[in-house]
Amino acid sequence: MEALTKKQGLPVVLSGPSGCGKGTIVSHLLSRYADRFALSVSATTRAPRVGEQDGVHYHFTDRASFEQAISEDRILEYTEYCGNYYGTPKSELDEKTARGYHVILEIEVEGARNVRRLCPEAVLIYVLPPDAKTLEARLRGRGTNSEEDILRRLETAKREILSLEEYDYVIVNEDNGAAVAAEEIVSIMQAEALRVTRNRIAVESFFAP
Amino acid sequence: MEALTKKQGLPVVLSGPSGCGKGTIVSHLLSRYADRFALSVSATTRAPRVGEQDGVHYHFTDRASFEQAISEDRILEYTEYCGNYYGTPKSELDEKTARGYHVILEIEVEGARNVRRLCPEAVLIYVLPPDAKTLEARLRGRGTNSEEDILRRLETAKREILSLEEYDYVIVNEDNGAAVAAEEIVSIMQAEALRVTRNRIAVESFFAP
Repeated sequence: MEALTKKQGLPVVLSGPSGCGKGTIVSHLLSRYADRFALSVSATTRAPRVGEQDGVHYHFTDRASFEQAISEDRILEYTEYCGNYYGTPKSELDEKTARGYHVILEIEVEGARNVRRLCPEAVLIYVLPPDAKTLEARLRGRGTNSEEDILRRLETAKREILSLEEYDYVIVNEDNGAAVAAEEIVSIMQAEALRVTRNRIAVESFFAP
Repeated sequence: MEALTKKQGLPVVLSGPSGCGKGTIVSHLLSRYADRFALSVSATTRAPRVGEQDGVHYHFTDRASFEQAISEDRILEYTEYCGNYYGTPKSELDEKTARGYHVILEIEVEGARNVRRLCPEAVLIYVLPPDAKTLEARLRGRGTNSEEDILRRLETAKREILSLEEYDYVIVNEDNGAAVAAEEIVSIMQAEALRVTRNRIAVESFFAP
């Protein structure tokens, strides 16, 4: 039963409105479960800053290569910001999952959709705050957002939550609940690794000599 | 987010060849996680024995009632043994899952299929021994089975494993691995409770006033 014991990692997408606390959950996963979870290193077309190493902070590349990679479905999701591309190379994901890591992608709904298309094995998790009131309170609590910005983020959240059906799991990040949410993600990934659909070969070879 | 915090239990079907160690896993779940897992009490048409209480050891009933319950899809799965029916009443399951318990049904493939039909929310888990050799060794190790019986059980296992595709999860019960297998089932049930498909109402009411 190779495939069940020598576990392969899986891509895990985390989405959720700003204020849902994704960042804190990811920190928990990476510090508490560093042997099982990893972040993917993005590719970018922006120039390296002092001290940034290729392959560690980013995979640095040029526009032509990035655009060719997009056209060949070798970029799982990307965004353009201040004239530069930032995105997730599929190769990065393949390499780390093969080494047994669940690779966390903290991305938006549109990107998640693309990951699903290009990596059907990915597990899609949506993170919700406990309720709309808490979400609003968290956005205001930051103190750095203008009223207009807060209302815009709430509107985005409302729209995004309609896309929640496209996700596999939904978890609620209570106040100070990041550790609990991280445990839930660990359980989800453990369960996913045990799905029959992910263990076909192992199962078929059970009675093989 | 009612449905996510105040959790409802789910039916959980455990199947697997004799010698896979289901019984030990169930004992672990019931002793270690008595607050979350429960067994269903079967209905039977056989007469109560001394000391047996109705509703505790069995739900005692008569043939006519049992057969009517079958015809009305109120029996999830049943078997006939020595002229008496034994089966799982749906009411038993509904009552205990409503109280928050995951209700364990230790049944065969045919019964599991019927549970899936009548309780689409059920989680179906197949328990495998590590490999065919171990299975055979365990069956022989019991010392109570004839050679013919052992070969018959191995044949049944081979046939059953072909039905594994109908299950949601497959877990491997290593030698002395019942505690690990029980933990895996706990993770599976925790993950299942977080599936988007099981939390539609909670999600839809997120922005409700």
